[in-house]
Amino acid sequence: MLRRALFLTLPFFLLSLCLSHGQVPKQIQAPADPLPSWNEGAAKKSIVEFVRATTDTASPKFVPIAQRIATFDNDGTLWVEQPMYTQLMFALGRVKAMATQHADWKDKEAFKAVLDDNRAALAKFTKKDLLEIIAATHAGMTTREFDAQAKDWLATAKHPRYKKLFTECAYQPMLEVMKYLRANGFKTYIVTGGGQQFVRCFSEQAYGIPPEQIIGSSGRLKYVKEAGPPSMLRLPALLLLNDEEGKPEDIQLFIGCKPLAAFGNSDGDRQMLEWTQSGAGSRLMVLVHHDDAEREYAYGAQSKIGTFSDSLMAEAKQQGWLVISMKNDWKQIFSFEVLK
Amino acid sequence: MLRRALFLTLPFFLLSLCLSHGQVPKQIQAPADPLPSWNEGAAKKSIVEFVRATTDTASPKFVPIAQRIATFDNDGTLWVEQPMYTQLMFALGRVKAMATQHADWKDKEAFKAVLDDNRAALAKFTKKDLLEIIAATHAGMTTREFDAQAKDWLATAKHPRYKKLFTECAYQPMLEVMKYLRANGFKTYIVTGGGQQFVRCFSEQAYGIPPEQIIGSSGRLKYVKEAGPPSMLRLPALLLLNDEEGKPEDIQLFIGCKPLAAFGNSDGDRQMLEWTQSGAGSRLMVLVHHDDAEREYAYGAQSKIGTFSDSLMAEAKQQGWLVISMKNDWKQIFSFEVLK
Repeated sequence: MLRRALFLTLPFFLLSLCLSHGQVPKQIQAPADPLPSWNEGAAKKSIVEFVRATTDTASPKFVPIAQRIATFDNDGTLWVEQPMYTQLMFALGRVKAMATQHADWKDKEAFKAVLDDNRAALAKFTKKDLLEIIAATHAGMTTREFDAQAKDWLATAKHPRYKKLFTECAYQPMLEVMKYLRANGFKTYIVTGGGQQFVRCFSEQAYGIPPEQIIGSSGRLKYVKEAGPPSMLRLPALLLLNDEEGKPEDIQLFIGCKPLAAFGNSDGDRQMLEWTQSGAGSRLMVLVHHDDAEREYAYGAQSKIGTFSDSLMAEAKQQGWLVISMKNDWKQIFSFEVLK
Repeated sequence: MLRRALFLTLPFFLLSLCLSHGQVPKQIQAPADPLPSWNEGAAKKSIVEFVRATTDTASPKFVPIAQRIATFDNDGTLWVEQPMYTQLMFALGRVKAMATQHADWKDKEAFKAVLDDNRAALAKFTKKDLLEIIAATHAGMTTREFDAQAKDWLATAKHPRYKKLFTECAYQPMLEVMKYLRANGFKTYIVTGGGQQFVRCFSEQAYGIPPEQIIGSSGRLKYVKEAGPPSMLRLPALLLLNDEEGKPEDIQLFIGCKPLAAFGNSDGDRQMLEWTQSGAGSRLMVLVHHDDAEREYAYGAQSKIGTFSDSLMAEAKQQGWLVISMKNDWKQIFSFEVLK
C-alpha cells in the first residue's frame, strides 16, 4: 500500500519540485507567443495560421523551405515614414553638411530652401526639386563613402517627434513577424522604393536582414580601376525604380520566384501583393493601415507619403488581403513605447 | 603472461575485425578528401588552405559565416563553353523551333544561316547578328514561357562532342569546390555573362545553387496586369550586361559586399577577381585555364570564346592569382569520364 501510494504521489512530488524552482516540465509548458505585441484577433490568427499551414509537413499547403520567401516594404511597413521619408531627411542633412563645398547652392532655390530650413518652400517641393537634392547627395561618391555618410547620420539623427534614432522607430509587431517567419524557415527580404544602399546600412542591425536580401531603388554603379585598388562609383543615373510595377519586376530579377507572403502599406505595394497572390497554394498578402494618430500617425488616401487609396482598399477587400489596423491589432507599436 | 598478451593483442584483434568488415574505427579514419577529382599539388593545396584559414576560429584570418561569399563565372568555369556558348546553341535551336511562325526569317540573312545550318555563315556572325538572334528568341514572351522553353531544351539537347546533356558537361572538380565551400559555410553565387534566367533553369539541379544566387545578364522585365492574374514579360531591352566591369557592379547590386573568393576563366572575369582581391584579409582568386585538348579543349589568348589574354595571365602572375591547369590539376574533368 505504501509502495502504491509512493507510485502515485511521486510524479506530483517531482512536478512540485520543478515548479518550486520556477520550471515547468516541457510537456505541459505552453509555447511562447511568437507575436506578443499583437492583440489577439483575426489579423494575428491569420498570420499564425498561414505559417502553420505552410510549414506543417502534414498540411496539404506545406511548402518546402527553399520556397519560403517573404517580402517586406520598408517605409510605413517596417518603420515610420511620417512626417517625411527618413531617407529624405538624410538627404536634407547631407545638403547642409556639404554646403561649404558648394557655394553655388545658395543661389539654387531648392538647395536654398533646405539650407534656410524654409518649411513652406520645402512643402512645395516638386519631383524635380527632390530628384536634384537626391542626385546631389546620393551620387558622385564611392559606395564606401556613401556607406560612411549614411551610417554616421543614422547613428545620431533623431526622429522629430519621438526623439529616438530612426532605426528605433521600427514597428515592434513587424520585427516579431519577421523573426517568427525566419524561425519557421522563411527568408525575409526587404523590397523598398527607398535606396537599396541606404537601407543596407541599417537592415542587418535593425531588422536582422543581410545586404543580399535588400531590394531597393538603385542608381547605376561604375567600377573604376586606375592605379591602386579599384573602387565603385555611384552615378547620378537611375537603374531601378523599385516601386509599383518595379517591385514584382525586381523580385523576379533578384529572387527569381514569387514570394509566399508580402507585406506593404501603400499604393506602391499593390503590384507586389498581386504578384504574390498569383502564385499557387497558400499565400499571405498584408497591408499595414496607419489609423493610430495617438501612438503613430493616421493617414491614407489623401496622404502624399504612403498613399493608401480607396481603390487599394477596395482591391484588398475583394481579394481577401489582410488589412492591419495599427490602432486595433497592435498592442505595442514601438519597443520604446510605455504600455498603459 | 597470458593476460598481458591478451591485453596487447585484443586491440589489434578488434581492429582486424573491423577491417575485415571494411570498416576503420573512427579515431584512425582519415577525413574524406573533399576534392577527390583534383590531383595533389599546389592548386588543390591553396584552395584547402584558404578554406582552413578563413573558417578555423583559431586562425588570424577567420571570417564570420555571413561574409563567406564565393562567386563563380559559369561558361568555361563551371561547364563547357566550346565549340559555342550553350545558350547560343539554345538560341539557334529556338530559331528552328519558331521558324514556322516567322515566314519572313527565310529572307533575313542571319536567320537563314541558322535555318540552313550554314556553318560558314554562322562562323562569320557579327555582334549585331547575334543580338538579333538573341532578341528574337529571348524576348517577347513571359518569364514562365521562357522557363518552359529553356527547360525543355536542356532536358534533351546534347553537346555535339560529348553526346551528353549540357548540364552533364559540368566540371566535376568545380562541383566539388562549390560543395566543399558550402560545407564550410560559404554562400556560392554564379556571376555569369550569360542570361540570368537561362542559368536559373538548371543551376539548382546541376550546381545546387538556388535562383536568388544567380547573377547574370538580364533584359528588362515588364509586369503586366489586365483581366485575370498578372504576368511578367521579357522585353527586348538590356538591363544588365554582366561581364567585365559589369560583374563587380552587379555583385555590389545583388550582394552588397565583396566576395571572399572568385573563380573565372577569361578576360570577362578580370574585374571580378580584382574587386575580390581588393578586400581585406585572406582572399582567393582563381582562373581556370583550358589547356587540355585531349579531354576538353585547349584555348586562350587567340580564342573568341573564353579569351584568356596574355595581359590577364600577366596580371594573374603579378597578383598571385591561382591559375588552374585543367590538364595537370584535374584528375577527372567530367563525371562521365572514364578514368585511365
